[in-house]
Amino acid sequence: MQNKSQLRQQYEQIKAEGLNLDMSRGKPGADVLDFSNAMLTIPGSDYMSDSFDCRNYIPLDGIPEVKKLLSPILGVTPERLIIGGNSSLQMMYDTIVREMLCGVWKEDRGEKIKFICLVPGYDRHFAICERLSIGMEMVALGKDGPDMDLIERLVADDDSIKGIWCVPMYSNPTGITYSDEVVRRFARMKTKSANFRILWDNAYAIHHLNDTPDSLLNILDECESAGNPDRVYMFASTSKVTFPGGGVAMMATSDKNADFVRAHMGVQTIGGDKLNQLRHVRFFGDFNRIVEHMKRLSGVLKPKFDTVTEILERELGSDFGVWHKPNGGYFISFDGNPGTAKETVRLCREAGVILTNAGATFPYNNDPDDKNIRIAPSFPPVEELKRAMEVFCVSVKLANEIVRQ
Amino acid sequence: MQNKSQLRQQYEQIKAEGLNLDMSRGKPGADVLDFSNAMLTIPGSDYMSDSFDCRNYIPLDGIPEVKKLLSPILGVTPERLIIGGNSSLQMMYDTIVREMLCGVWKEDRGEKIKFICLVPGYDRHFAICERLSIGMEMVALGKDGPDMDLIERLVADDDSIKGIWCVPMYSNPTGITYSDEVVRRFARMKTKSANFRILWDNAYAIHHLNDTPDSLLNILDECESAGNPDRVYMFASTSKVTFPGGGVAMMATSDKNADFVRAHMGVQTIGGDKLNQLRHVRFFGDFNRIVEHMKRLSGVLKPKFDTVTEILERELGSDFGVWHKPNGGYFISFDGNPGTAKETVRLCREAGVILTNAGATFPYNNDPDDKNIRIAPSFPPVEELKRAMEVFCVSVKLANEIVRQ
Repeated sequence: MQNKSQLRQQYEQIKAEGLNLDMSRGKPGADVLDFSNAMLTIPGSDYMSDSFDCRNYIPLDGIPEVKKLLSPILGVTPERLIIGGNSSLQMMYDTIVREMLCGVWKEDRGEKIKFICLVPGYDRHFAICERLSIGMEMVALGKDGPDMDLIERLVADDDSIKGIWCVPMYSNPTGITYSDEVVRRFARMKTKSANFRILWDNAYAIHHLNDTPDSLLNILDECESAGNPDRVYMFASTSKVTFPGGGVAMMATSDKNADFVRAHMGVQTIGGDKLNQLRHVRFFGDFNRIVEHMKRLSGVLKPKFDTVTEILERELGSDFGVWHKPNGGYFISFDGNPGTAKETVRLCREAGVILTNAGATFPYNNDPDDKNIRIAPSFPPVEELKRAMEVFCVSVKLANEIVRQ
Repeated sequence: MQNKSQLRQQYEQIKAEGLNLDMSRGKPGADVLDFSNAMLTIPGSDYMSDSFDCRNYIPLDGIPEVKKLLSPILGVTPERLIIGGNSSLQMMYDTIVREMLCGVWKEDRGEKIKFICLVPGYDRHFAICERLSIGMEMVALGKDGPDMDLIERLVADDDSIKGIWCVPMYSNPTGITYSDEVVRRFARMKTKSANFRILWDNAYAIHHLNDTPDSLLNILDECESAGNPDRVYMFASTSKVTFPGGGVAMMATSDKNADFVRAHMGVQTIGGDKLNQLRHVRFFGDFNRIVEHMKRLSGVLKPKFDTVTEILERELGSDFGVWHKPNGGYFISFDGNPGTAKETVRLCREAGVILTNAGATFPYNNDPDDKNIRIAPSFPPVEELKRAMEVFCVSVKLANEIVRQ
């Protein structure tokens, strides 16, 4: 065990190196993006889909070929898929706004709407609630999903709880996947509000990191079997398959909900970029090619995840925190000792390593225990990542010393 | 003058030909889209902007190069431009929703919000109001803009009037451009509501058809001079410059409004498709090249507009309606004799020529005089357009005979 002055000395040495490493967001690295570069000269003169000139207006919710290509990601029939623009976040935001202004929550505006927010969770989900004045009820996320006893109690008792955010597979940031039993309980549970909706952000549905991937039950099927067909909206995108910002976003829901979505979309937009949809169709051909592509990406990403967990194990052992080694997704969630997260992130920043802000994984940026830090290993090359994680580990240890005083 | 049985005979002959021509929307033809085909292999390996890897996340509101390229369209500095996705309609919808849920209209929801809608006007503007339960107050559009006396009276008297839709240049569908005096009166007028907003949809800002184009005063500058800097949101897109659905949408407003827009966008979306922004930058280089490009497009579009007005003049003279020969834009507006529009559109459809529905240019699809028809000459080749306009003229005449009975 190093003492405080040794740690301080080690930290000051690193700081003097003037590092500049950004691990703040789940950004793919150039090494991963390169695998999709062939898209950048597509479609060329091959701009006709079977039925449409993709250079022109219509169809509103995606060309049939892109629905066929991408529907296996959400496990629905192609007809059921609704293709959006380049951002599934925008589709989620739109879904909430649509229900608030024109849909089932029209009569429940303002303080009367609350969402269950699983923690630690995805900061952008919480930001949408905060922006739209939707209340947030925190529930802890465990190793196989959220605390379902508590969720069942909350939704059975409180009519004002209208929704929940879920990242059900390779959860952001903890990397866990919901068990079949959790999915079934979501589908079956009794809700006091008839208009309770699950926003099922399946962002990492095909983003496996190794040969023992997790699997997830199809919640839309389960909701239909349970007699609650309209309960769930599922989302995904190819932002971390091809290009972030240059990808294709999609959603799926019951036929009744989908009619409502499409009618509204027809008023709100001219539809997504069909040339980009076609670009994905020409680049991949079929879903098997997407699966192969994702294996190439994980070949680059896995060594980065391994680097993070190896250095955490080597440097921190079990005294300074816990973390989970995920089978997929984009993050490693580090739970340090209570009261150390903000100080750790601050020390890292001063030493030139930018992490996601401590607290970001909680509503209102407020981690009550000040312990969770989201580590995003995807962007830096492995050598930089090693250096960054060494900075991280020294900072964790020093933060513990500082906080202990 | 033909009698009814001659007209009926002529109509039945055309109907027997089994035509199938669609003039329902303002779609560019393949002949126009072809001018942008070189974009379909861009950016290739040239995917770095000056400061960003355009394949990855950020920046939120557009790469600096695309702002520089497109800002002359709205007549603002590059820094002022906010780049969206592929749809300016989505940006307008978002602007209204944002003000309703989080902005200056937050306290004025539901029936309390009304918009002034200029008629005849753009059906999609009216559809957004209808969908969001915003009331619509009709005001007639004249040859140099709307009836400003009436508008000034309405906004001075009625606190519930929070906005107005304008297509100020080459208006959809009448093709007129607002005079300088009209723009200045918009900027200066006293409004009872402090939160009155102009949605300035400058969709056809650079879409001239001949060498005597209209010109439009910059309303943002005028609003600032008049001490009402936050009054206007300006919008445009390259949907009818490059590809509909594959274009770039943009907006501009005061700095105060823009701060609000960007803060909200940061919650709502990951930002637009930067690869498509870069595609536009690489294809055009600078704004002069966009101007040259638009001249090539008008070389294709002008003969189509000429075809429509020549056939209208030749076949209908002045007995059956009036129309305006625009200097730009995408439409010719035909005002027939009262009570004939629906019947004309129906007869055309039965003879295989699909027009925009009669009434579509009015709120709730209700043209009180049943006289306005929007003609969209852009899509069909000239030979098909000739045939379609002959069908149109026979249908107008026959509709007059039928209605007169």
